[in-house]
Parts: sequence; structure tokens; C-alpha cells
Amino acid sequence: MALAAARRVLLHAGSRLGRREALDGARRFANKRVLVEMEDKAGVAVMKFKNPPVNSLSLEFLTEFVISLEKLENDKTFRGVILTSDCPGVFSAGLDLTEMYGRNPAHYAEYWKAVQELWLRLYLSKLIIMSAINGASPAGGCLVALTCDYRIMADNPKYTIGLNETLLGIVAPFWFKDNFVNTIGHRAAEHALQLGMLFPPAEALKVGVVDEVVPEDQVFSKTRSVMAQWLAIPDHSRQLTKSMMRKATADNLIKQREADIQYFVSFVSRDSIQKSLQVYLEKLKQKRG
Amino acid sequence: MALAAARRVLLHAGSRLGRREALDGARRFANKRVLVEMEDKAGVAVMKFKNPPVNSLSLEFLTEFVISLEKLENDKTFRGVILTSDCPGVFSAGLDLTEMYGRNPAHYAEYWKAVQELWLRLYLSKLIIMSAINGASPAGGCLVALTCDYRIMADNPKYTIGLNETLLGIVAPFWFKDNFVNTIGHRAAEHALQLGMLFPPAEALKVGVVDEVVPEDQVFSKTRSVMAQWLAIPDHSRQLTKSMMRKATADNLIKQREADIQYFVSFVSRDSIQKSLQVYLEKLKQKRG
Amino acid sequence: MALAAARRVLLHAGSRLGRREALDGARRFANKRVLVEMEDKAGVAVMKFKNPPVNSLSLEFLTEFVISLEKLENDKTFRGVILTSDCPGVFSAGLDLTEMYGRNPAHYAEYWKAVQELWLRLYLSKLIIMSAINGASPAGGCLVALTCDYRIMADNPKYTIGLNETLLGIVAPFWFKDNFVNTIGHRAAEHALQLGMLFPPAEALKVGVVDEVVPEDQVFSKTRSVMAQWLAIPDHSRQLTKSMMRKATADNLIKQREADIQYFVSFVSRDSIQKSLQVYLEKLKQKRG
Repeated sequence: MALAAARRVLLHAGSRLGRREALDGARRFANKRVLVEMEDKAGVAVMKFKNPPVNSLSLEFLTEFVISLEKLENDKTFRGVILTSDCPGVFSAGLDLTEMYGRNPAHYAEYWKAVQELWLRLYLSKLIIMSAINGASPAGGCLVALTCDYRIMADNPKYTIGLNETLLGIVAPFWFKDNFVNTIGHRAAEHALQLGMLFPPAEALKVGVVDEVVPEDQVFSKTRSVMAQWLAIPDHSRQLTKSMMRKATADNLIKQREADIQYFVSFVSRDSIQKSLQVYLEKLKQKRG
Repeated sequence: MALAAARRVLLHAGSRLGRREALDGARRFANKRVLVEMEDKAGVAVMKFKNPPVNSLSLEFLTEFVISLEKLENDKTFRGVILTSDCPGVFSAGLDLTEMYGRNPAHYAEYWKAVQELWLRLYLSKLIIMSAINGASPAGGCLVALTCDYRIMADNPKYTIGLNETLLGIVAPFWFKDNFVNTIGHRAAEHALQLGMLFPPAEALKVGVVDEVVPEDQVFSKTRSVMAQWLAIPDHSRQLTKSMMRKATADNLIKQREADIQYFVSFVSRDSIQKSLQVYLEKLKQKRG
Repeated sequence: MALAAARRVLLHAGSRLGRREALDGARRFANKRVLVEMEDKAGVAVMKFKNPPVNSLSLEFLTEFVISLEKLENDKTFRGVILTSDCPGVFSAGLDLTEMYGRNPAHYAEYWKAVQELWLRLYLSKLIIMSAINGASPAGGCLVALTCDYRIMADNPKYTIGLNETLLGIVAPFWFKDNFVNTIGHRAAEHALQLGMLFPPAEALKVGVVDEVVPEDQVFSKTRSVMAQWLAIPDHSRQLTKSMMRKATADNLIKQREADIQYFVSFVSRDSIQKSLQVYLEKLKQKRG
């Protein structure tokens, strides 16, 4: 409910803030945290994550993300979206732990619903969605990449990608797992999830977490050229095919969405988890301070 | 019903037309479109597709195919079948679009039921079924290959294989998809189906669409030698094992077979689809004319 | 029931027989067929199969195996278990055919329940379970390895691993198959199961039946060092993750456990199967005699 309200406000604000301008045939709407560059001719929009320092998936960021996506879905001009980062070295660091610490149950519930919403929107999107992974992509950052139709990663061994939840003492939600199994298979997913593996680019390619690894300065251009191949496919057929492949997995969350929220709220409300988060966040603060 | 009647007639005709002859220990029954060479000693039959120019899966061809298969299944002499093409350069071009254009709903329903029937028969066959893929194998042609226990393809880069339905503006039925996912995994299937990918032999091998690629002049001999390995396995155990692996996938179609037919009929009856087919068929005519 | 009784007796005996001694920080309990070496410091126990000549999964061996495992699960000191063989050249030859020949239905039922029990215990174990495969591992021996979190095999081409049931004229149970599909994927499992393939180490690695192949004299040390990596993961998160990955597969057996026992009893009671087993066992006797 709070999310819905926030979205209404932001959608409204978006139409004011979004100041669409014609710039060499490119339009743009400048949200605070998701910069959307629209190239009408190509039918492709670029969504740049700009939530420094590490593109945490804060409630506000999630809300802007979903709204920007909705706008693009409803604008017939666009057929493809490229997700990439505006923050050097990080694609997205995943869930925002400050949304999970020291708040009330209603906030936790709202936050988790927003995380679910983003995943459902991305995973089932009618648009061709690709990620140009130009930085680290752990946990929720990896999830965003996993929803895409194609993933290209910069060949920089400092960047890693994976669902590393166990390393943090938590467990990847079942729908993260379902998306992961669909992408790399049951055994590789079991292995990687148990160990919380973060793969450097070459390993990520080998196990199938990403589809291609290219030199860092070519990540974006390469993603554009692969997008061009996908744009050659009739939309209607491609969309129905994508839905056929993914609907059962998405339905698996949809049918137990409320239970999943309740589970998250009760899990995160535990004293032990709150204590862990506190310690972790203080460490992070000192590091950055 | 019409299909059942046709089958009865053809089965009857088959027994007349099939003129079984002893030729160096080999029998043969010559249907018009599926030439069956039977080598009693080896327990292996070879089914050569002969529906020029491209072995389209016409209703008549499907009917002969299923009847020939039934005969072999009921003849205890035979334990294995090799599917291959008698038409140079093409294994099978897939569904026959002329069966889907300008006919009435009853015809579309009959046609689709025959396509389902072929898939169910092949996918669940107690016989060892292998394909010696000596030509192009798009869409329904690829499906026929996917039902087999083993697939060997000629190493000719002109030949490609894949479920390329999206390229034609249509969507692969869910049971094509299920068979495909079982063969190459979820991610590879999602990728290939969205893009309607047609794989040249080396790529088909890499992604698992085929099991082996050999020089063109060795496709058949190699298939025979692999068949010999499979014949070494006790039939009863192998058949139960095959059924255990495939029953759930086949049941997925069986339980919604009527709905799938209705969906096909209503889809193909649409004006837009009929118009597309008309354009496509006229282009094809000019090309061949 | 007989199994439950046997277990009670053995658990009791175990506490007497198990003579725990402090040997350089290592404890040990010496069952007759499963030698358990416990290294408290590392939190790792080693279970050595000692049921000569080939570590057949006899009812007695299964019972000791399950009891030893229960003890380790209930002892908070232990977080990981390494399974390996004390019999040269054989990891485990699988099910004990003498348990399936010339007995009464009650015995067959008890035996099969014990096989199910071992699989369920291993597959769902909260402990990190690894196998150091230092010998041949066909059929049930392969199943034991498949339940593990990680499999390392000795690089000796004389050793093979696989579910070769069809070669023996029988069929792998559906839950062997489910475990196999989870490990190597649907197509590879279908292929290997139909042919009853026994993979030498290099092939086993390629298809994913094992995770690593190392020189024979390093199998155990390598398993220890991989175990150390797994021990770095918080137990609670890892256990929940493992359960999330495996619960559906285990439930598939649990919900039809009785029916599976009945199927086994009626299958093995058939005259034809008893005759086959008799012939096979006599051949084995002559060979060893």
C-alpha cells in the first residue's frame, strides 16, 4: 500500500521531473537514481543505475526502477532495454541492508514486496532486457542480471558475480534459486548457492552465469550489437516464447507472494538477524567513514 | 476421426502396397512417402523420408509415418529404427504450411492431431530410435530429431537444425519446448527459442541439439554402429528406463491434447495468420516456379 | 519394523562397541563394517566402508551406515563427513544381491526400506558430505556418491562410476534417476541410464558425475582441502540452502515410499528375476571360488 502510494507520487513526479528533451534524437528522463536514455530510432532505452556509492537496491531505487520500466513498457517506441551502471566498479551491490535494520514490520513488508515486484517485472518483461555488467554484481545485483535475456560482463577480474547469500549468514529466497537453476542448471546452482560463490568473469562465463565476457571498454558497444540481433525477431513471437519459458517460475512466486513476505518479515525481525545487521552496518560505516 | 479412417485405409492399403520381398535378407515396404527398409538379422529398420522436395510433414506423410512406425512396433523382429532422408540436402523442413492455409477448422484440427500423434509415438516409442540427419532440419524437422534416442548429423555447414518458429512469426508449441528443454537445458532452450536459432552442425553439437557430427558420407554407417551399441542393452530394462525419463513430458501434452488442438485451430484460423501464410506460400511458389 | 529393532540393538551395541579413544585428538568408533574416524578439531569425520570384498550394501552394512550417520548428525562436534572405502579398488559395488534372492517378501521389504533410508539420510543430511571415490562405484555405489555435496574421484581408468542397472536387466528406481538428473541434467541422465553407462574418471568428470578427478594418492588429501573450504560457510545458511535445493526431490520419494517398497517386493519376487539372480550369483561364486 505504501509502495503503491509511493509509486503514484513518483509516477506523477516523474512526469514533471522526467523533462524529456530531444538531444540528437535521444530523449531522456532524469529520475534521481535511474537515468534513462532513450534512443527512439533504435527502439532501445538504456537504464543507468545511479544510486551511489554501490547501487544498493533501496526502496526508493526499486520504486524508480519499476516506474521507469513501466513507462518503457507502455511506450510503444521501445522494444529493448539495456541495464548498466553509472557507478564505477559496481553494477549493483544488491539489497539495501539499511532497509532491513531498525525499521518496523510494515516497512520490511513494503520493502520485500518492492523487491518481488522488481523481479517479477524484469523476469516477465515483454521488452528485450540485457545487462551490460560493468562492475561487481553480488546477491541482489546478480539477481537483476539473471532476469535478463542476455548478460555481457566486463573482463575485469576484480568484478565478481553470484548469489553469495550464505557468506552473509542468510539464504537466497526460493525464487532467486529458481531463476538461478533455470540459468545454470540444478547442480551448478546447488554448488554455487551452498558456497555463496562469487565468480570472476571467466568463471561466470564457464558456468553460464553470464553469456559473454568482453574487454571492459567494449561491454556497452557489444551489448548494443547483440541487442540489434534480438531486435530482428518479431516481437509478438518472441514475447510469447519468453512467457512460455518463464511463466511457471514466476507463478511459483506469485502464488505464494504473501507467505514469502511474511517469511521475510519474521526472519529479518529476529533479534539475532538485527544484531548481525547492526554489526555489519557499523563495520561498513567505519570502512567508508 | 478422419485421421483414424485414413489410417485404417492406409493400413489396409499398406498390406497390399507393402510388397514385402526377401532381398538378401532384407524386407521392404514401399509406402509412397516413407520407404522402410527392414534388415531382419540386425533387428533394425531404416525409415527414409521421401516426400519431395523437402519432406514437409503433410497430413499424408504424417499418416504414413505413424502407420509405418506402428507396424515396426508390432513386429517383434525389430528393436531399432533409423530415421533418415531420401531427399538430398533436407532431413525434413517441418510442418506443411499448405495444410494450415485455406482449409476449414476440421482440417486444421485433424492436421494438428496428426502432428501430436507423431510426436507422442516417436517420443514414447519402445524401439530404439536414431536419426541420421543428412540435411537441413528446421522447426518440425528438428522436432522429429529431438524425439530420438540419439542424433548424428552430417558435417555440412549448409545444413542447420533448430526450432526457428519465432523467425516465421509463430511460436513453438509447449511440447516442442518441453522436448527441447529436456535435450539442451532450460537456458539454452530459452535463448535458442527466443531467437529462433538454426545451428550449423558444430554449434548444434556444442549446445547439445545433436549428439555427434560426422563427415557426410559416414552419417549412416556411424548411426548403424552406434545402434549396435544400443542393441546390446536388454530391451525390457531400456524401455522401462526410457519411459521413466519421458512419461511426465508426454503426459503434459496428453492431458491437454484437446485444448492444444483448439488453440492451434483458433490460432491458424486468424485472418492475420492466414494472410501471412498466403504471402509466404506465394513467395515460395515463385521461388520454386 | 525389523529394521527399527535392528537399529535399536545396534545403537545400543554401538555405545558398547564403539570404544571411543583419544588418539592424537582423534576418536574412533569401530563398527564391524563402517569404520568411523573422528577428528574433533577439524569437525570432520571419515567413514570408511569396510564390507569386503566389495562393500556391498547389505542390510547389516546399511544399518550400521545409517546409525553411524545418525550419531554424527547428533554430535554437535561434527560438521562434515568424508565417505571413502577401506576395500582396495572398490568404493562400493552397490546393492547386495544376496538380500534380494531366496528370501521372503518381508525381508525384501525391510531391505528396500533400508536402502531408501540411507538415501534419504545422506541426501538430506545437514552435514557436509563428500566422497573420496577410491575405487569402482557402480549402481548403488554411484548412488551413495550422488548424494554427496562434492565428489572427488581417483584418476585410475580401471575405476568406473555410473548407474548401470539396465546392463543387469533391471531399472534404476525413480529416485536414483531424480538424483542423477539433478546432478548431470536430463539428457545426459537419459543417455547414461538407457545404456547403463559406467564412466571412467575423465568421462565422469566431463559429464558431471564427479566434480574433480585427482591422482589416486591425492584423493583423500584433496577431499580434505575442499572440505576446509566448505567448512568456512556458516552452517545454518548452508543447511537451509541445501534443503531448499533438495527437499522437493526427497519428498518425491517420501510421499510414495510405501508404494515404492511394494513395487520392489513384487518385482524382485518374480520367478524370472529370482532365476536371473540365481544364475548371476552362481557365476559370481565360481569367479570368486
